[in-house]
Amino acid sequence: MSLYAASVPQLKKMLNNVDKWLEAAVEHAKSKSFDPNVLASSRLAPDQYPLTRQIQAIADNAKFCAARLTGKEAPKHPDTETTIDELRARLRAVVEYLDTFTEADFADSKGRLVELSFMPGKVLSTADYLNEMALPNFYFHVSMAYAILRHNGVPLGKMNYIGSLNLKDK
Amino acid sequence: MSLYAASVPQLKKMLNNVDKWLEAAVEHAKSKSFDPNVLASSRLAPDQYPLTRQIQAIADNAKFCAARLTGKEAPKHPDTETTIDELRARLRAVVEYLDTFTEADFADSKGRLVELSFMPGKVLSTADYLNEMALPNFYFHVSMAYAILRHNGVPLGKMNYIGSLNLKDK
Repeated sequence: MSLYAASVPQLKKMLNNVDKWLEAAVEHAKSKSFDPNVLASSRLAPDQYPLTRQIQAIADNAKFCAARLTGKEAPKHPDTETTIDELRARLRAVVEYLDTFTEADFADSKGRLVELSFMPGKVLSTADYLNEMALPNFYFHVSMAYAILRHNGVPLGKMNYIGSLNLKDK
Repeated sequence: MSLYAASVPQLKKMLNNVDKWLEAAVEHAKSKSFDPNVLASSRLAPDQYPLTRQIQAIADNAKFCAARLTGKEAPKHPDTETTIDELRARLRAVVEYLDTFTEADFADSKGRLVELSFMPGKVLSTADYLNEMALPNFYFHVSMAYAILRHNGVPLGKMNYIGSLNLKDK
């Protein structure tokens, strides 16, 4: 299994899924006559990230995953979003960034080492980085965004999380 | 990257992480003088799984992932747990099951197709099953368990989620 196949297509799909949840959140807020941006500051515990930071973390985890696996410089996003519309634009910007990657960009990925700013002097292999850090962390923030929305009554179900599957006829 | 490396070691580590969170949950309940099994029925939304079902789903996702990728029959667990101690035993039973797998069990995994009971007539390649279904679903329920505990004041942080990393010196 290539590092590309294990990352980019799934990251893109999940970013698009989260974008649709935020669209559903805006619809839910309209139907209940509350400001959808109330949801942006909602959180599950007082010392946990609110939805805004969860979405920013989703976007950053996805872009840094592709950048670190391929040795590229990720684009900068300054975390200035304050509305659901701005958060959705942030997600779409990362989908566009991921669209620039192909299998060919990952040709040298296997032998690459990943440095993490909070672990000075240490490195991870790209496979370990993907399996132990990038994917678990990405799905963590995706799931927290889902949980915050569900906790606030936005009508989402598991298939909105899983999204499309590459099914084949038996 | 092998399907073994992308699944079994990480699944085992996360199951052990969740086991430690439940231990922390029991300690938290003791320190606040409430019955730790109150947490077992806690949930984030009225129509979402409580902690008990989240833990059972974590255990099942992990065992079915290894079984389906290798064409083995997974052991049966009848979802009878009602206490935190029983849920922890369920997690440890799956760790023991995963301990029986080696790279050699995955030798024929690449060409295998995965059938899902809720998608009759359809199949997924093993790589698509792992990337699109097994890992996202596993991390979803792991994250929901974490969120339920954090929402109820159990002192956990991100490193309790990520766990150990296979760091090397630079």
